[in-house]
Amino acid sequence: MTIDHAARRARLAAALPAREVPALLVTSPVNVRYLTGLVSSNAAVLVRADGSALLATDNRYIDKTRALDVPAVEAPDVAGRLAAPGVGIEAAAMTVATFRRLEAGLKEGGGEGGGLVPLGPLVEELRAVKDEAELELIRTACALTDQAFADVLPLIAPGLTERALARLLDNRMTELGADKPAFDTIVAAGENGAIPHHAPTDRELRAGDLVTMDFGARYHGYHADMTRTVCLGPPAAWQRDLYDLVRRAQRAGRHALAPGAAAKYVDAAARGLIEAAGHGEHFRHGLGHGVGLEIHEDPFLGPSRTGRLEDRVPITVEPGIYLPERGGVRIEDTLVTREGGPELFTKTTKELLVL
Amino acid sequence: MTIDHAARRARLAAALPAREVPALLVTSPVNVRYLTGLVSSNAAVLVRADGSALLATDNRYIDKTRALDVPAVEAPDVAGRLAAPGVGIEAAAMTVATFRRLEAGLKEGGGEGGGLVPLGPLVEELRAVKDEAELELIRTACALTDQAFADVLPLIAPGLTERALARLLDNRMTELGADKPAFDTIVAAGENGAIPHHAPTDRELRAGDLVTMDFGARYHGYHADMTRTVCLGPPAAWQRDLYDLVRRAQRAGRHALAPGAAAKYVDAAARGLIEAAGHGEHFRHGLGHGVGLEIHEDPFLGPSRTGRLEDRVPITVEPGIYLPERGGVRIEDTLVTREGGPELFTKTTKELLVL
Repeated sequence: MTIDHAARRARLAAALPAREVPALLVTSPVNVRYLTGLVSSNAAVLVRADGSALLATDNRYIDKTRALDVPAVEAPDVAGRLAAPGVGIEAAAMTVATFRRLEAGLKEGGGEGGGLVPLGPLVEELRAVKDEAELELIRTACALTDQAFADVLPLIAPGLTERALARLLDNRMTELGADKPAFDTIVAAGENGAIPHHAPTDRELRAGDLVTMDFGARYHGYHADMTRTVCLGPPAAWQRDLYDLVRRAQRAGRHALAPGAAAKYVDAAARGLIEAAGHGEHFRHGLGHGVGLEIHEDPFLGPSRTGRLEDRVPITVEPGIYLPERGGVRIEDTLVTREGGPELFTKTTKELLVL
Repeated sequence: MTIDHAARRARLAAALPAREVPALLVTSPVNVRYLTGLVSSNAAVLVRADGSALLATDNRYIDKTRALDVPAVEAPDVAGRLAAPGVGIEAAAMTVATFRRLEAGLKEGGGEGGGLVPLGPLVEELRAVKDEAELELIRTACALTDQAFADVLPLIAPGLTERALARLLDNRMTELGADKPAFDTIVAAGENGAIPHHAPTDRELRAGDLVTMDFGARYHGYHADMTRTVCLGPPAAWQRDLYDLVRRAQRAGRHALAPGAAAKYVDAAARGLIEAAGHGEHFRHGLGHGVGLEIHEDPFLGPSRTGRLEDRVPITVEPGIYLPERGGVRIEDTLVTREGGPELFTKTTKELLVL
């Protein structure tokens, strides 16, 4: 499946008249990639309401533009090269410093037609709904993630450090064909499991630990995200109870996913079970987030999130319960919304694995 | 050696009167870390001209603030919690979207005293000159980098792919104690060496290849950066000539490093040799950059860079020559400026290694 970048630019162009701008200056690197295929740390693309576009990048990347379906110019100051009076800019991607420099440049040039027009997310909204070519890449990223977990599982044992286990997962994903890990892998053992974003340390795994692993592969720029919590040795009653509760909440969240579902009600489907069990205060993050060219992208699932899901939106469902100084459990899948019910991309078992 | 964060905040406070602001709202994550020690993806610190400070972060990180020497408040919107009329902001770190949201919030609050004041680099300027505790961390990061190279060197042979070699270097650095690789490791073999920022592929190393490796360790947040080019089998005459030229240019650049030296003249010391040999057009990037909590930070060495070096500034010297479709050579060290002459941190030999 090939990606039709011109069709993406046409969809963006169609959204410009409602924002009352003749063109959008796209400077977010991941949005430039989405609209043109160019992977660069210094590039911008101007997309006009008539569907035409002009790309700018510096001499390090200009050779790569020859294979693309959009004309390109070489310039070290990519945004400055494309800025023009009245053009929209991505307010969430451009810094105040760049904005002021570009505005000063336009004034110096004596440009009529006013300054730049800061706009909210436009390309991000287009990106939320994936085409089948993108879904296939995310499906593959998730399959690599599953396989890496399966391959590393027999190596998880007391004495291994959090850092060493994280490295095993990262290496295996890369060996299997991932670009790289999708984000900094989390491994949290025992009491460290109480910290949702724990960074792996030299703490050794011990019998009796719950061990949470949150990791994923990146494949052709697209991300996977999965969390599993395992138990080293037979679980104590509190560990089994906690696990079962999170598993039921995660299942409720998955089953609430549907095109048209409100983001806050999907969150509530899982959160309600956790609150009812008296652990509301121990689940203090959102239920999930979109995944794609970024590991966290629109839409987000949480109690105060507005909006509804659409069809073909890859998203995570990841409730967790974190007991200070004792430990925690999180279970996370990446799925995609479908009319007939969500498709599960991360297929690793959610039974409690006792190692 | 411990880090004195209060002293850093005092230096920042002393710089505020000249900018005519009562306080600076610091939102760059690395600057927050520099000033407080807090490592967080969502934190801000307000530093006032009297030297006092207030930190804000969300519930994921608030526990970590208890060990710090600065008071902290919990807030999901960290910048919104600390913004106040007339306060300076970091224009290169804050997005237009955040700036507009904060300004609207201040107006709603009926705040007297005007809006936020966008300022240029302030903390970045302080960060350029390192204290001895920081230099020790960079020295260690570079020692890990040297050791990883020495350990991997015997494994470099025809048949190994660029990606596999990059993974060997990354793993070895992490095993030796690095936080993680300082940046995406570059391995470029044969004709790929003509691309300065080549991302490793499945291309296998072959006899006759020049192979460029650009990599480094991160240690306690501080970065190392080193590049070596080796030859698989006896070099052809053009390969040896190219290598010798880059080596002489790199040496000239290193010897030009001194407190008080103009950034553009250090660049010229190396570039002059390359231009004189007729390869000026094949060296199209700057000579080097500062390293510290970021892999690329002030100061930068290049033909159009202004400013002079100071004492205790860690910096890279990395000339390269890139021959389209044939290959390239780059040699890079991390050093620190000293009154008596630069101290070399990356100690791996710069003799042409023939493997």
